[in-house]
Amino acid sequence: MSSTPTVLLLGATGETGQSILKGLVESNAFNVEALVRPASSTKPEVEELRSAGIAIRLADTAGAHADLVKALKGVDIFVSAIGPNNQLEQLRLVDAVKEAGVKRFIPCGFITISPVGGVMRLRDEKEKVYNYMKKQHVPFTVIDTGFWYQISLPRVPSGKYDAALARGADEPNEVYAGGDAPNILTDLRDIGVLVAQIIQDERTLNQYVYTCGEVLSQKEIIAIVESVTGETVEQTIVTTEQVQERLEGVRAALAADPSKPMNQVLAYMTEYCHSKYVRADNSPAYAKYLGYLDTRDLYPGTKTRTFRDFLADVLDGKVQRVYSKKS
Amino acid sequence: MSSTPTVLLLGATGETGQSILKGLVESNAFNVEALVRPASSTKPEVEELRSAGIAIRLADTAGAHADLVKALKGVDIFVSAIGPNNQLEQLRLVDAVKEAGVKRFIPCGFITISPVGGVMRLRDEKEKVYNYMKKQHVPFTVIDTGFWYQISLPRVPSGKYDAALARGADEPNEVYAGGDAPNILTDLRDIGVLVAQIIQDERTLNQYVYTCGEVLSQKEIIAIVESVTGETVEQTIVTTEQVQERLEGVRAALAADPSKPMNQVLAYMTEYCHSKYVRADNSPAYAKYLGYLDTRDLYPGTKTRTFRDFLADVLDGKVQRVYSKKS
Repeated sequence: MSSTPTVLLLGATGETGQSILKGLVESNAFNVEALVRPASSTKPEVEELRSAGIAIRLADTAGAHADLVKALKGVDIFVSAIGPNNQLEQLRLVDAVKEAGVKRFIPCGFITISPVGGVMRLRDEKEKVYNYMKKQHVPFTVIDTGFWYQISLPRVPSGKYDAALARGADEPNEVYAGGDAPNILTDLRDIGVLVAQIIQDERTLNQYVYTCGEVLSQKEIIAIVESVTGETVEQTIVTTEQVQERLEGVRAALAADPSKPMNQVLAYMTEYCHSKYVRADNSPAYAKYLGYLDTRDLYPGTKTRTFRDFLADVLDGKVQRVYSKKS
Repeated sequence: MSSTPTVLLLGATGETGQSILKGLVESNAFNVEALVRPASSTKPEVEELRSAGIAIRLADTAGAHADLVKALKGVDIFVSAIGPNNQLEQLRLVDAVKEAGVKRFIPCGFITISPVGGVMRLRDEKEKVYNYMKKQHVPFTVIDTGFWYQISLPRVPSGKYDAALARGADEPNEVYAGGDAPNILTDLRDIGVLVAQIIQDERTLNQYVYTCGEVLSQKEIIAIVESVTGETVEQTIVTTEQVQERLEGVRAALAADPSKPMNQVLAYMTEYCHSKYVRADNSPAYAKYLGYLDTRDLYPGTKTRTFRDFLADVLDGKVQRVYSKKS
């Protein structure tokens, strides 16, 4: 790409998409544009994008193929940060990406490392997209991110940073299956700078990559929080057997009423929990086994935040609550 | 592995397995043993293995888990060359491989490069095995082989090598979709020496590898045959549309009567044809895109047969007909 490549981002107003957008813009390496549904064109968050100088392309991912192709014309790299409930809409995007001649497609990964085949429904849906993308021979990079620091933070009894917690102050700090499983974690605020590097790197073409700020178990996170705050984290022990019972329960509820949003959310969250803590899938060893590249190896010079950095920002009131509204 | 590693081969009497067995034995790098169903223990071809000094382990892949684990004890590398109709029996083998502590599992690949998701039923069945193997974090190498020289050879009018053809002398030499699709080909007789190298190579652990003698299109094969024999190959042109019509026809027949063996065989063969010649999946470019390593890069010093070498052996009467009986 001799001139500045054009990156088009789908989901720019979502929690992950916002951070990606920021990193792409700040990299100064791309013309950054956003793909927005026509029905959302006048929403305040889209107006904000326009005010920030982001060119908006309008197309409905569920709309006509020809319109999608038109919206993707001239795009070098297409990044999909589509919502968890709309993953399969990407099947149609693959066809448009191919026809428009997009040079690299970043399908919506951005989750933990996990296997295919009944462990996480979300991962299995993504696999359908990846398989179709490969069947169509579309150039790609899959980017997974482990779990966010922002949703891995236990509450302290004083409640001094309750405003930054993604969950209610009355929810217990559950520690699962012994709390020793190592987990790949990234600061949500760092994902943008890493994505900007990954998508302009020839080494990552047609590869799977994971971002990583730090690898920590729940016990290690608690030790850091206790050391920094001087408070004792109240812990609720949840055994492997209890996680498995919960998993069976939420899956049964989902099977009984698949359309109920709460059933979907509980299954989704419990599957994450089981994969991360019982199966210990979200680890560098398993990622390497699956063939992933690691941003710590690819970009050793890039400074990303440690969990202590993140916690210091939390205590300074610099970290906003995430997932506090539907996005 | 400080001492000589033990390789256990399933399917040692099959067409692919025989060649693998020969290569493993001739490499002098392994204790080579064969896994055989108890019901086949006294068959002549198994007696032949015993006579050749191959230790036989008896277990039924559809039998009790504990028996399978016992049969795999002490095995360093387990190579599965199970038949195309029994692919899913490998799901249970994965559990046994894991429990027995086998250091590397070679699931039954040994086919052309093709995508997952409705192109080849055989490939999709293998994917179920691969996904389960990865879910169980079993160390592996997938080995694909492209298509065999032995079944890529067109007939010449004189019939001078009809005895070596895998098909009937009355079957036409069909040339599909223009005949220009490049195809990865391997001499069936070379697969053993390549497998012996791949399975003792740390670079191929948890990777996909394809073997390759030569990459040729149908037109290029015909040109070689005509140049070497001085005969003109009679060609029957089959267009892309005709392949697609056939594919729809055999799939409809299979859907109507899935248990009829001829419906299975025709679907299987037509799917190969469509993938190789219409989609052009079985190419180095697509294999690289999918992340495969190439034995030509890994083992540049290993001499494998060219198609001309193979044809010379055919003309010398040194090549046996393959797939001439149920194996």
